[in-house]
Amino acid sequence: MNEKIYLDNAATTKVDKEVVDEMNKFHSDKYGNASSVHSLGQEARDAMEKARGIIAKSINAKPEEIYFTSGGTEANNWAIKGAVWKTEKKHVITTKIDHDCVLNASKWLEKQGIKVTYLDVDKEGFVDLEHLKKEISEDTAIVSVIHGNNEVGVIQDLEKIGKICRDKGVYFHTDACQSYTKTDIDVKKQNLDLVTLNAHKIHGPKGVGALYIRSGVEIDIFMHGGGHERKMRSGTENIPGIVGFGKSVELADKKNIKKMSEMRDRMIKKIIDKIDNVKLNGPEGYNRLCNNINLSFNNIEGEAIAEYLDGYGIQVSTGSACSSHTLEASHVLKAMGLDDLCANSSIRISLSKFNNEEEIDKVLEVLSDVVIKLRKISPFK
Amino acid sequence: MNEKIYLDNAATTKVDKEVVDEMNKFHSDKYGNASSVHSLGQEARDAMEKARGIIAKSINAKPEEIYFTSGGTEANNWAIKGAVWKTEKKHVITTKIDHDCVLNASKWLEKQGIKVTYLDVDKEGFVDLEHLKKEISEDTAIVSVIHGNNEVGVIQDLEKIGKICRDKGVYFHTDACQSYTKTDIDVKKQNLDLVTLNAHKIHGPKGVGALYIRSGVEIDIFMHGGGHERKMRSGTENIPGIVGFGKSVELADKKNIKKMSEMRDRMIKKIIDKIDNVKLNGPEGYNRLCNNINLSFNNIEGEAIAEYLDGYGIQVSTGSACSSHTLEASHVLKAMGLDDLCANSSIRISLSKFNNEEEIDKVLEVLSDVVIKLRKISPFK
Repeated sequence: MNEKIYLDNAATTKVDKEVVDEMNKFHSDKYGNASSVHSLGQEARDAMEKARGIIAKSINAKPEEIYFTSGGTEANNWAIKGAVWKTEKKHVITTKIDHDCVLNASKWLEKQGIKVTYLDVDKEGFVDLEHLKKEISEDTAIVSVIHGNNEVGVIQDLEKIGKICRDKGVYFHTDACQSYTKTDIDVKKQNLDLVTLNAHKIHGPKGVGALYIRSGVEIDIFMHGGGHERKMRSGTENIPGIVGFGKSVELADKKNIKKMSEMRDRMIKKIIDKIDNVKLNGPEGYNRLCNNINLSFNNIEGEAIAEYLDGYGIQVSTGSACSSHTLEASHVLKAMGLDDLCANSSIRISLSKFNNEEEIDKVLEVLSDVVIKLRKISPFK
Repeated sequence: MNEKIYLDNAATTKVDKEVVDEMNKFHSDKYGNASSVHSLGQEARDAMEKARGIIAKSINAKPEEIYFTSGGTEANNWAIKGAVWKTEKKHVITTKIDHDCVLNASKWLEKQGIKVTYLDVDKEGFVDLEHLKKEISEDTAIVSVIHGNNEVGVIQDLEKIGKICRDKGVYFHTDACQSYTKTDIDVKKQNLDLVTLNAHKIHGPKGVGALYIRSGVEIDIFMHGGGHERKMRSGTENIPGIVGFGKSVELADKKNIKKMSEMRDRMIKKIIDKIDNVKLNGPEGYNRLCNNINLSFNNIEGEAIAEYLDGYGIQVSTGSACSSHTLEASHVLKAMGLDDLCANSSIRISLSKFNNEEEIDKVLEVLSDVVIKLRKISPFK
C-alpha cells in the first residue's frame, strides 16, 4: 500500500489549501503588527477582526467575547486558573474524563489549596449530573466539562450542565476543542460562560485557538504584557494563524458532519461484523463525535495494533496524541470502568472530511489481518 | 510615493520567503502531531528537533535546554512567574525599562505579596549595576533584565549582570526578543539561566518563541497539559511555526548586522544634520541595537509625525507597538530622564536587512518637511 491513510484527525488535521493560501497573504505581504497604528498594522487588525467575527458567529457569541490564544491548552489553562485567581472561592469541579490540560491544571491548583472534584462518568462516558448537582457549593469557582471527549467521542449535554451551573450562579467552562464545528455550540442556548476552541483540529493551523468569555464573566489575566486583546491576553497577535483559524471555520460545512457520521457508523459495523470480540468504547449515534471510533480488541495491545497499521501506511492512535509516549492506561477508559487490560487493547480511529469509503475498506482488511496475527502471538489468551 | 517603506521592524518583520516555503511543507503535507507515535508524527518531531538544534547552537546552549513557546510574551511570563512559583523566595528584580510583559507580570506578582525592585537606568538607558548589587538579597528569586531595549535600542552588558547574579546564586533571566541574532548571545559566557527568544522580530513567523532554561534551573510549569516539551510546556507543538523559527535563525547573517549598523549611523547623522533640535535617545555605536533609531523632535508630537509619514507610505512607530494605542508617555524614555513633552515628541525608526539607502534618503526628505510643517503649527513653541 503506497498511499498513506490518515485516521488520526483527533490528534491534528491536514490544513485546508484555502486556509494556507489565506495565511500566506499575511507572512511576507500584509505582515504588519496588529497593534501598530500605521496602515500595515490597520490591515492586519482588520483581518483579525474579520476572523473574530466569523468565530463569534459560529457559536452565537459577540465578537468582543472572543479572545485569541496560542491554542486549546492555553485557553483551558487560562479559563480554569483565571477563574480561580479572580475569586476567593476555593473549589473547582471537573470530570474524570477531561483532557490532561484541564486535569493537570487542576492538580496544580490542588497543591495551592484548591479543592478539586473529579466527576464520575457512566460506562458510556456521560457525566453524572446528580453528582454535579450535589458537588456544587457556594465555594465553587468554576465547573469545567469537556464537550466532545478526545478519546471516546462522547458528547456531553452542555445545555443541561449549563442550566445547572447558571441556576447555581457558578461559571461553566467547556473544552470544545474536539467538538467545535462537529456539533452545535450555542453559548446562549447552552448557558456557556467560557468555551475553549482551537484551529488545528478543524483543518486550520497549529498554534492558534480562542477562549470565549461571556460579557460580564470575570477571570484573571493569564498572559501579561502589552495589553493586547482588550487588555486580557497579551502577546503580538498571530495574524496568519488567526486568519487561518477564521478561514477554517468559514469552510466548515455541516454536510461533512453527515458524511463523517455515516462513514463512522459503517466502519464500526464492518469492523464488529468482521472481527470477533471487539468492543466499541463510548456511545453510539448522535451523542458521539461524528469522526470518532474507539475500539477495544480483546487480549492484544492497542500500541501493537497501531504500530502494525503504521507499517501499512495507516495512521491511528491509542489514547490521546499528547500522552502517546506514556504507557499508562487511558484515564478516560478507566473512568468508564474498563480494566487496564481492556483499556490497553484499544485504538482510536478519527476521521476527517478528506477520508473516503475506499480507504475505510482497505483499513478494514489490514486491521482484520493484524488483529488475527497479534492474537495468535498474544500472551493473554 | 507609491512604494511603501517599512521602518517598524522592532514591532514585527516581513517573513523571509525561504521561511514561508519551509513552513508550507508542514501544513498540508507533513502535518502530523509531533506527539503522535506514527510515522507522520515522527516526521514532525524530527523537523522540530532540527529547529531546536539550530536555535540551541545559536546561543551556545544544548538542544534540551530550549523549550518552544507561543512567543516572547509567554516565555517572559513563564520565566518570571515560573521562578517565583517554584521557590519560597519573595523578591523579584527587574528594570524600569523592561518590556510591558515583564513589568505587568511583575505588578501582578506584587498583588500576591511579592516584592519587586525596578532598577534605575542612566540617561542612555544602561542599568545601574551598583543598584542591582545592593538590591540582590537571599530572598531574591530572579533578576530579569531586557537585553536590547525595544524602544531605544540600548544593549545591556549581560556578562557583567550575569556574573553578579551567578556570584550571588540568583537566577538571571533576559528578554532577548529584540537582540536575538542582532548581537551575540552566549549563555555560558554571559552566565544566563533563562533567555526569552522569539521569531517574528527576525523575519520568522508570529506566534512562536522559546525559553532557554539552563540545565539544573528549576522553574514551575506555566502551561499544564499533555506533557509536551519534556513535561515542561504543554500544548500541541506548532510545527510550521517552529520550523519557520529555525529557518529564520539559520538565515540570520552577521553581514546584515554590519549593514544595518552602518545604515542606522548614516541615517542618524543625516537627520541630525538636516533637522534642527533633534535628540537621539539611547547610546551611540556598539551598545545600540543595529536596527534602532529613536529620536525626539522638539515641540511636536511623535504621534503626529508618525501619522504624517504613514500618509506618505512610511511606517515608523512611537514607543512600542504593543502600547501604540495608548497616549501615555513611554515608561522607557521617562526612566531615562526625559520629561513628558520630550518623550511624547519621539519616534522610533527600526530597520531590517530589507531596507536600503534609497529608502533612507526618501524618508529623510519627507521627515524634514513633516517636522517643519508640524513645528509651524505647534502650540508649544
